[in-house]
Amino acid sequence: MQILPDVQIIQRPGIVEFGWGHPAPELLPAEALARAAALTLGGDWHAALTYGYGQEPGRLIELIRLRLGRLEGVTPPAEQLMITAGISQALDMLCAQLSRPGDVVLVEAPTYHLALRIFRDRGLRAVAVPGDGQGIHVDAAEAMLHMLRSGGERVAFLYTVASFGNPSGATLTAERRYALAALARRESLMVIEDDVYGELWYDAPPPPPIYNLAPGGPIVRVGSYSKVLAPGLRLGWMLAAPDLVRRCSSCGVLDSGGGVSHFTAHMVAAFLELGLLDPHVEGLRAALRSRRNVMLTALSRHMPSGCTWNPSLGGFFIWVRLPTDTDSAALLPAAEAAGVGYLPGERFFAEGGGQNYLRLCFSLLPPDEIAEGVRRLGAALRRG
Amino acid sequence: MQILPDVQIIQRPGIVEFGWGHPAPELLPAEALARAAALTLGGDWHAALTYGYGQEPGRLIELIRLRLGRLEGVTPPAEQLMITAGISQALDMLCAQLSRPGDVVLVEAPTYHLALRIFRDRGLRAVAVPGDGQGIHVDAAEAMLHMLRSGGERVAFLYTVASFGNPSGATLTAERRYALAALARRESLMVIEDDVYGELWYDAPPPPPIYNLAPGGPIVRVGSYSKVLAPGLRLGWMLAAPDLVRRCSSCGVLDSGGGVSHFTAHMVAAFLELGLLDPHVEGLRAALRSRRNVMLTALSRHMPSGCTWNPSLGGFFIWVRLPTDTDSAALLPAAEAAGVGYLPGERFFAEGGGQNYLRLCFSLLPPDEIAEGVRRLGAALRRG
Repeated sequence: MQILPDVQIIQRPGIVEFGWGHPAPELLPAEALARAAALTLGGDWHAALTYGYGQEPGRLIELIRLRLGRLEGVTPPAEQLMITAGISQALDMLCAQLSRPGDVVLVEAPTYHLALRIFRDRGLRAVAVPGDGQGIHVDAAEAMLHMLRSGGERVAFLYTVASFGNPSGATLTAERRYALAALARRESLMVIEDDVYGELWYDAPPPPPIYNLAPGGPIVRVGSYSKVLAPGLRLGWMLAAPDLVRRCSSCGVLDSGGGVSHFTAHMVAAFLELGLLDPHVEGLRAALRSRRNVMLTALSRHMPSGCTWNPSLGGFFIWVRLPTDTDSAALLPAAEAAGVGYLPGERFFAEGGGQNYLRLCFSLLPPDEIAEGVRRLGAALRRG
Repeated sequence: MQILPDVQIIQRPGIVEFGWGHPAPELLPAEALARAAALTLGGDWHAALTYGYGQEPGRLIELIRLRLGRLEGVTPPAEQLMITAGISQALDMLCAQLSRPGDVVLVEAPTYHLALRIFRDRGLRAVAVPGDGQGIHVDAAEAMLHMLRSGGERVAFLYTVASFGNPSGATLTAERRYALAALARRESLMVIEDDVYGELWYDAPPPPPIYNLAPGGPIVRVGSYSKVLAPGLRLGWMLAAPDLVRRCSSCGVLDSGGGVSHFTAHMVAAFLELGLLDPHVEGLRAALRSRRNVMLTALSRHMPSGCTWNPSLGGFFIWVRLPTDTDSAALLPAAEAAGVGYLPGERFFAEGGGQNYLRLCFSLLPPDEIAEGVRRLGAALRRG
């Protein structure tokens, strides 16, 4: 009998895989994490090995809120912060607290495709709001909200990856952030701000988080250590109104077992205490900036005319628009035969569309493979 | 501002805490886990730090199924086994797959009180089936099932801690296990067998798991490393029909983030590969057996007449029956004033009852504290 795999990613020999939105193995700080693990299981290990509690652990909450204060100038109080098992777990937990089956969720078009699956599992219907290179159209979101509500629909929340979006790479401008924060307050529309890529800026930091623009407003901000440290830690955090933090952290699952990523939460606390995170993020930005640059250069060189893309200013992805009559899903087998893979754009649209888009990930592969992969993609597109 | 705590447990000076169902700090294998962590983050660390997948990881699934085969004589195929973030997460995930809000769940009276909270969060109504020193009454479960179904109710599943139950310490007899397996098949009643304490037997192993008695039947068995290794790892496993494993492991949350306890799953795989688990469990059994014996001896010496209890043959708890007119919840403040805590029995009954019971945990405290705590409890009961 064959043993099942250990990891999600499937690497196919001969294919440059731009489809997987994963960090490169060589960029994961294994040695530094080994130091953090040794510290966690060294002298004072008891807290890391016994039951945590829902919001938990206090030492990591304290380290995160002080770091946020240092980076962003706003130090959230501990009662607004909760540790999660990554953004996926946070989204599922938020669905449980904020929605009922049959509710609508407003999402950007395009949006993170796997969030759509989490919403669907909770019986929610995703309704797409158009976006552009500057993020979601707030006016369109407002119009859609009114239309849905006047039709008797219950809109549970709006979900957006505001900085360096997946798949678009787009960043919501400061103006639109203020507008969205104001809309959220005015209409009591809960907004979930997925800030998974916020620290991974390559040119300049993104505008302030929406969460910071509407103190006390109906905003939840979710963050993650999957991209800045390691996905396998399954660790993230959530900022929300104290009441919502209380409701989430006192749910049955967490009351029984304590925080789901309790051990790695203590490891990451040790990582922060050792002062290892900031230099690591610095190095990661440099490495990913150079990969991003290699991809942009290769795209300019190899893409046929009629293809366009925005220079992503952060995150993992470049979102390529093909000529209108090109279907990226239909083209994929030919591209793979030419030795390059990507994710077809249509996966990122909750209500259809995006056939002439594709998502390229530049975080996983070394620069020379990126250049070669884009060359192959250009050739495949030219052959059409 | 005060920093939030790191752990669930609150220890109050001067009080012998029999209420917390936690393992003793000195019984957690911190040093051996440090070896496992060092191995995990040593040479071949990539799989442990990147994204896992829903069922995951293959190496741990393989180690667990071979160990089960060695211990129980039945080696489950990999397609029936899935790694979980502990039993609480598994129960929540199973509720999502097996139930709809409004459904009924059959539970034992008494049953694990925090499972009731998880079921409630999913909108389920727990209906109690009487149990005794030999576990749940299968005939009563069948009668209840028929009554509910004929009343138009949908029964999602029956939940039971079959070996060394929490709080009762009772173990379902082999005869009742066969009867329950037959009932499950005959009535297509899904049975969730919570096997959290199965390895912690102090006199003789429990009867075969219900799961093994009904191959292909509607049984799910959930296990955990919280009691035999460390709660903070948030790691467990689930045995179920391949189709149910597939549905659980392909849900949106796991599709996006991979297995929730991915890193500690790799640590525990290393722990097993290093051959550390069996000797640890052996030592744990010896330590807990001796604590159990100390508690039984102290109970015989100090309990007033009219109090009865069964000698728990495994697990963490002894379930004490007080005289019928004694209310354990009402007595608790006086007991705490006398320096001893416990959990009142009524918490473990889904539909009321149990006022004259209390749960004592013998896994957390050293033997001398156990003896002293039982002495104080006896005195408090005598003062009544």
